[in-house]
Amino acid sequence: MEDLTRFNLQEAIAVLGRTAATLDALLRGLPDSWVRSNEGNDTWNAFVIVGHLIVGERTDWMPRVRIILERGEARPFDPFDRSAESEIQGKSLEQLLDEFARLRRENLAALQALNLQPDDLARRGRHPALGAVTLAELLATWVVHDLTHLHQLSRVMAHQYRDAVGPWNVYLGVLKCAGHSAP
Amino acid sequence: MEDLTRFNLQEAIAVLGRTAATLDALLRGLPDSWVRSNEGNDTWNAFVIVGHLIVGERTDWMPRVRIILERGEARPFDPFDRSAESEIQGKSLEQLLDEFARLRRENLAALQALNLQPDDLARRGRHPALGAVTLAELLATWVVHDLTHLHQLSRVMAHQYRDAVGPWNVYLGVLKCAGHSAP
Repeated sequence: MEDLTRFNLQEAIAVLGRTAATLDALLRGLPDSWVRSNEGNDTWNAFVIVGHLIVGERTDWMPRVRIILERGEARPFDPFDRSAESEIQGKSLEQLLDEFARLRRENLAALQALNLQPDDLARRGRHPALGAVTLAELLATWVVHDLTHLHQLSRVMAHQYRDAVGPWNVYLGVLKCAGHSAP
Repeated sequence: MEDLTRFNLQEAIAVLGRTAATLDALLRGLPDSWVRSNEGNDTWNAFVIVGHLIVGERTDWMPRVRIILERGEARPFDPFDRSAESEIQGKSLEQLLDEFARLRRENLAALQALNLQPDDLARRGRHPALGAVTLAELLATWVVHDLTHLHQLSRVMAHQYRDAVGPWNVYLGVLKCAGHSAP
């Protein structure tokens, strides 16, 4: 089958609506050794990743949708604050998973309520660094941003067994992933 | 927190026991555009990935555990047949997810029933290509193999929106992942 190159709103929502349950299935109840460990130095562990997704729900995705619909290119988006420190302080991972699930559910309900039409998806906003972007591109990015952090999380967890797998490390692609983090 | 460098059986089982539910939450009911698309040419889609995990449950992980315990290095493992064609033929993704969950549950029950002790985890077997390996290395590899395919799956799905994200592609790490596939 061909790649899906055209953005489709309901197909995007199908992924966005599964991310919270996916993270929950993977992370809830896991021992600290898995969820508190990172890839060294200032890299992210599961707490920071889920906290970052929460920040996105609060300040990034739907606020940007509304800026595009209400103000178009006249009002650039606020930069995305990637720090999640204040979000995760003093919380258990289970609390963070619950919070992310609630915010995502609310945001998808709000998105559906907008009843976006193809013309709306072509409307433009202004990213502070990237310039003109469309609403469809913003929504596609929301999806791929979820997948980027699932990709990161699987790599962070695999890193904990980098030595434990012994000679098998040559066969395990996730151990060769360089991270590709944005600055 | 330090990396978890020492293998711990119950911590490994904690991840192995979550993989089927994670894949189920991510994939069940997704439109075909997500689960039938791949990264081009002979790359894998969700059907092939879940089929490959099923083959591992049937022929690789627990059979190799038993070879180590019963025969040690005297009897090399059978090579892992990475093809999943016969497993996925004519099946829905939901059937494959159910089958993987059932096999994984049975295999983890069998693993727990072995009541492995630290001395057992140091026992050696012989990999047909890699040479001497320990039981702990085999079990750690089972975990990281799950994570490799979750990492792959998030990348395959993200690939479908590679163009749809427009200029945001520069910020999305998963779109920069080269795959790192084993031969």
